[in-house]
Amino acid sequence: MKVSHRLFVAISSVLLSASSCSQPSQPASADEALIRQVLAAQEKAWNEGNIDGFMEGYWKSDSLQFVGTKITRGWTATLERYKTSYPDRAAMGTLRFEFFRFAFVAADTCLVTGRYTLKRDADEPTGLFTLVLKKIEGKWVIVYDHTS
Amino acid sequence: MKVSHRLFVAISSVLLSASSCSQPSQPASADEALIRQVLAAQEKAWNEGNIDGFMEGYWKSDSLQFVGTKITRGWTATLERYKTSYPDRAAMGTLRFEFFRFAFVAADTCLVTGRYTLKRDADEPTGLFTLVLKKIEGKWVIVYDHTS
Repeated sequence: MKVSHRLFVAISSVLLSASSCSQPSQPASADEALIRQVLAAQEKAWNEGNIDGFMEGYWKSDSLQFVGTKITRGWTATLERYKTSYPDRAAMGTLRFEFFRFAFVAADTCLVTGRYTLKRDADEPTGLFTLVLKKIEGKWVIVYDHTS
Repeated sequence: MKVSHRLFVAISSVLLSASSCSQPSQPASADEALIRQVLAAQEKAWNEGNIDGFMEGYWKSDSLQFVGTKITRGWTATLERYKTSYPDRAAMGTLRFEFFRFAFVAADTCLVTGRYTLKRDADEPTGLFTLVLKKIEGKWVIVYDHTS
């Protein structure tokens, strides 16, 4: 019984919200809805050319970590990276997020898997991302981002 | 006081083991040592041409997720992906892991950031990875892998 219980806890804790993808009729959790709001606000800010607004989705901490082609540590360095990589509206294009899975690995920690696409005049870069969000001071923020 | 306490808990839970990187003299936690053993066993198995042994580090579950150039779901599909991508010893080369951060986002959940390099006769592919390990049934296993 103990083993079964622990297995159940382990599986539920990993998969809690993954079920909202495999069973579309199941309502998303309140926390998943809050996380979706944070990411939708990022998308909106980006599409208004507002990188500072986009950065509101990230944890304002030196411990924020962004893994791209290289590792960027800290909120300020991540902001600078975005501003350097996307110096104007043409470079920013139109951002669209697509989400594949919201998995709560702990009650206050969610792993989000998705794809970003930038529609630009010249090209349409796209890639997969893994975000780790934590509920800090009652607000969900991205504490870790791996985008490839 | 309540706010300070919550902030402390939030920060510690994210950064607990990250400190072992920034302060090299601090001993790693017992769990970090166990996780390093799992990953060292993967490296060893790979370098013996043993993909099945390498796969022992992953959660044997349909919910395992591997994010590479595309998303692979489940232990069996992940095994097949490795066997297809690395059909022989020449393709497998010699694997070396390098670790940058072990961050315990929960007591039973660790985020590992690192780099893999494969030394092969023809080339030397390398990339960054984010692993999420969970302690399930007393054993740390990779439940999520984003490698780019």
